[in-house]
Amino acid sequence: MYASEHLRLPRTGIGTDVHAYAAPDDPAPLWLAGLFWGGERGLSGHSDGDVVAHAACDALFSAAGIGDLGVHFGTDRPEYAGASGRRLLAAAAGIVRGAGFEIGSVAVQLIGNRPVFGPRRREAEDALSDAAQAPVSVSATTTDGLGLTGRGEGVAAIATAVVVRSDRAGRGPHG
Amino acid sequence: MYASEHLRLPRTGIGTDVHAYAAPDDPAPLWLAGLFWGGERGLSGHSDGDVVAHAACDALFSAAGIGDLGVHFGTDRPEYAGASGRRLLAAAAGIVRGAGFEIGSVAVQLIGNRPVFGPRRREAEDALSDAAQAPVSVSATTTDGLGLTGRGEGVAAIATAVVVRSDRAGRGPHG
Amino acid sequence: MYASEHLRLPRTGIGTDVHAYAAPDDPAPLWLAGLFWGGERGLSGHSDGDVVAHAACDALFSAAGIGDLGVHFGTDRPEYAGASGRRLLAAAAGIVRGAGFEIGSVAVQLIGNRPVFGPRRREAEDALSDAAQAPVSVSATTTDGLGLTGRGEGVAAIATAVVVRSDRAGRGPHG
Ligand SMILES: [Zn+2]
Ligand SMILES: [Zn+2]
Ligand SMILES: [Zn+2]
Repeated sequence: MYASEHLRLPRTGIGTDVHAYAAPDDPAPLWLAGLFWGGERGLSGHSDGDVVAHAACDALFSAAGIGDLGVHFGTDRPEYAGASGRRLLAAAAGIVRGAGFEIGSVAVQLIGNRPVFGPRRREAEDALSDAAQAPVSVSATTTDGLGLTGRGEGVAAIATAVVVRSDRAGRGPHG
Repeated sequence: MYASEHLRLPRTGIGTDVHAYAAPDDPAPLWLAGLFWGGERGLSGHSDGDVVAHAACDALFSAAGIGDLGVHFGTDRPEYAGASGRRLLAAAAGIVRGAGFEIGSVAVQLIGNRPVFGPRRREAEDALSDAAQAPVSVSATTTDGLGLTGRGEGVAAIATAVVVRSDRAGRGPHG
Repeated sequence: MYASEHLRLPRTGIGTDVHAYAAPDDPAPLWLAGLFWGGERGLSGHSDGDVVAHAACDALFSAAGIGDLGVHFGTDRPEYAGASGRRLLAAAAGIVRGAGFEIGSVAVQLIGNRPVFGPRRREAEDALSDAAQAPVSVSATTTDGLGLTGRGEGVAAIATAVVVRSDRAGRGPHG
């Protein structure tokens, strides 16, 4: 077994997500970064397609080393079918804390042409930070017309998170 | 409000960037990772297209939770129009420090077929570390001929950064 | 020179990798995340194409600021030609420790349609953690049918890692 000194160090995680835009005649609403975006084309997917929230959840699970969205919110957990990004992020943060970790922060970058994100950045950060009960930063970029997001086929998000073992867990049998 | 214990932990950020290559008959020079690359095809974009420096800036802003390139260097800040990657990274590091954070490190991976990066890696790291006044590591990879970088349509970069609240900020009203 | 206080902070790194699937009539076996996947189409590349292990190596090198796979396992190092993902990750972790760093953790996300990863996640994490002698978490996602992985052209992986200077290095001339 490797040295227990790892337990003192922060752990980082990584998560990405991609969802295709819904068909033009699909009235699906757009939910992104925990917010409703009126008049924007929605995203496909068995959930609301909130790539920002999903990437954030996966980064948290990844940092804690406890799997991913499929493990915790997969088809064998029908209570999460169609759940909102805010609800999933709140649940993910709770699962990570329940596994013995304190959450430092989560950072997500939205990658896509639409919607124009900047004017609602703080609103999104407030919504997701409230859901996670930890600081969540959200930024945005585009890809110069290239790739799946540049061609407008969908949107992507990439996230990182920091967690540390909470004191309680640190005193456990593996602490 | 969530617990102030977050303030003791390091925060990480994430940033990605993509720029298309300029048209073959466009004499735009190539600037990448803070260096001039003679005899290489340039990149498009309203700035010099330095994806490495831009991703590094966004990772720093993301870690500090203070927005992104659009917020700080957008079209409403004409003084940064066409600014070099070095200048933008120096400005970003200054903005992050001014917001009350100490910069731990920045790490960037360049993703693309051209230029051949390895021989100038240390030169790039020196240039960008000097600009940020913090350790910046730069590495490179390719995508096996796939995707926008594999097809040679452009280059991409992905970055992460670590910041912590500086003591001064830690003693403030939110510390 | 910038302040030595950086040396007390954790450093994070980033690494991505992409490999194309082998041609349908190519009997190449699939190795991914340190495991053999029977009955699955293999990946191309001069090594076994283990994107998860390769991204993990690059994230470690990136965090330590000592280059990338090309620097340490490139064509001028024929002893690593065709080396397995486990062997490369073990070597990368040793190189990073030899450069004066303690490894906190590595987190990798596999991005692709095949293979179905969830059922073997813990087995992969055990194999790679044993190779790195540090905690390695592995998660998986798909891209909703979009991009190079969604079209089934190949698989990708993205990784982050945390390292800190070990005490020994901290006492050195640059400590
Ligand atoms: Zn999703
Ligand atoms: Zn850019
Ligand atoms: Zn590889």
